[in-house]
Amino acid sequence: MKGLFITFEGTEGSGKSTQVPLLVERLREWGHAVCIFREPGGTPIGEEIRHTLKHSHANAAMTAEAELLLMNASRAQLVREIIRPALARGEIIICDRFFDSTTAYQGYGRQLNLATVRHVIDLAVGDTRPDLTLLLRLPLTVSEERLRSRQATMPFIRDRIEEADRAFFERVAKGYDEAAAAEPKRIQVINATGTIEEIQSAIWRIVAPLVATRVG
Amino acid sequence: MKGLFITFEGTEGSGKSTQVPLLVERLREWGHAVCIFREPGGTPIGEEIRHTLKHSHANAAMTAEAELLLMNASRAQLVREIIRPALARGEIIICDRFFDSTTAYQGYGRQLNLATVRHVIDLAVGDTRPDLTLLLRLPLTVSEERLRSRQATMPFIRDRIEEADRAFFERVAKGYDEAAAAEPKRIQVINATGTIEEIQSAIWRIVAPLVATRVG
Repeated sequence: MKGLFITFEGTEGSGKSTQVPLLVERLREWGHAVCIFREPGGTPIGEEIRHTLKHSHANAAMTAEAELLLMNASRAQLVREIIRPALARGEIIICDRFFDSTTAYQGYGRQLNLATVRHVIDLAVGDTRPDLTLLLRLPLTVSEERLRSRQATMPFIRDRIEEADRAFFERVAKGYDEAAAAEPKRIQVINATGTIEEIQSAIWRIVAPLVATRVG
Repeated sequence: MKGLFITFEGTEGSGKSTQVPLLVERLREWGHAVCIFREPGGTPIGEEIRHTLKHSHANAAMTAEAELLLMNASRAQLVREIIRPALARGEIIICDRFFDSTTAYQGYGRQLNLATVRHVIDLAVGDTRPDLTLLLRLPLTVSEERLRSRQATMPFIRDRIEEADRAFFERVAKGYDEAAAAEPKRIQVINATGTIEEIQSAIWRIVAPLVATRVG
């Protein structure tokens, strides 16, 4: 028996952080062992790296190259310490962001060389690739509106990426679209403009048959 | 005016930590602006990464891939935040270990794919390469003897690499030798079995004319 590896992707405000726990809850109600992770993080080493990425006072000056390498150091650790053993036990792994975020944010967004980004990702994950990636897609104007209203209520919870400019987010969205076009079987695009329930249903219609086939 | 970038390399016990400050002192006596760094580290972000690499309780389980990526995240930051601006000001930079250590320790020692290691290094340093690398070479038996006597007096200052086995150090030494053979102009091999003064003189005979030519 082999487990199932599902990742969620999308721009800020696309609703991942709402949908991930809803899916996990439903799978657990069905009696499945489900591990849920966020990137960067998920291991003691990864959480230290997350802290360096997110909270260091010096981080305003972090280079795009250091950011790419730190993200993937956390990922390399997560894959080998947690994901591979869990998949070997036949469990379901759900990750809120995985390597498509790196392609979209560091590759397209920060405009690092895409071949280099791919090399670094390959090193970090090896052959551990998601069976299914759910890309929650929003028009940029909606994403920006949701982001603005979120920042208005939580003025101190802005992070570096959320401070980046509109051109950056346009490149990120393009990165996701090109990834989805290149791997239409793995990456399923979900329209994220609907209600929470509509999005949840769309996700479930894709996940349920896969779970039934793969982990019984 | 362009500065000068000198790195020191060698296995444990080769005397780098003795020779680096001696060279820095002499260059400063000559009136040169000298920056000295250790890897990993050298920036606030790099020092956080150093802590993750060296002191985390979880580090016994750190994967070779995460180690490679963390080392190079620290390096990417050091190159852009410190080394390039200092070279642009015409200063002399001296680094205790740089990318040849990664090739030797992570590539040869931990047996990561050498092409992958090279890609990661290229990302981290770009075209910022040492003008001169001083490789302090010791026979393995001498290196081991020095290491053992050091550990006997400092039983709690063992780190992960010093706990690795003899085959690991043999591969590291081979990595250094092959790097020196591939780039005989950049990498100057120093016999590190002599006295501190002999080694210091050998280093100075190489560095002095380069400094005279390059930074006046």
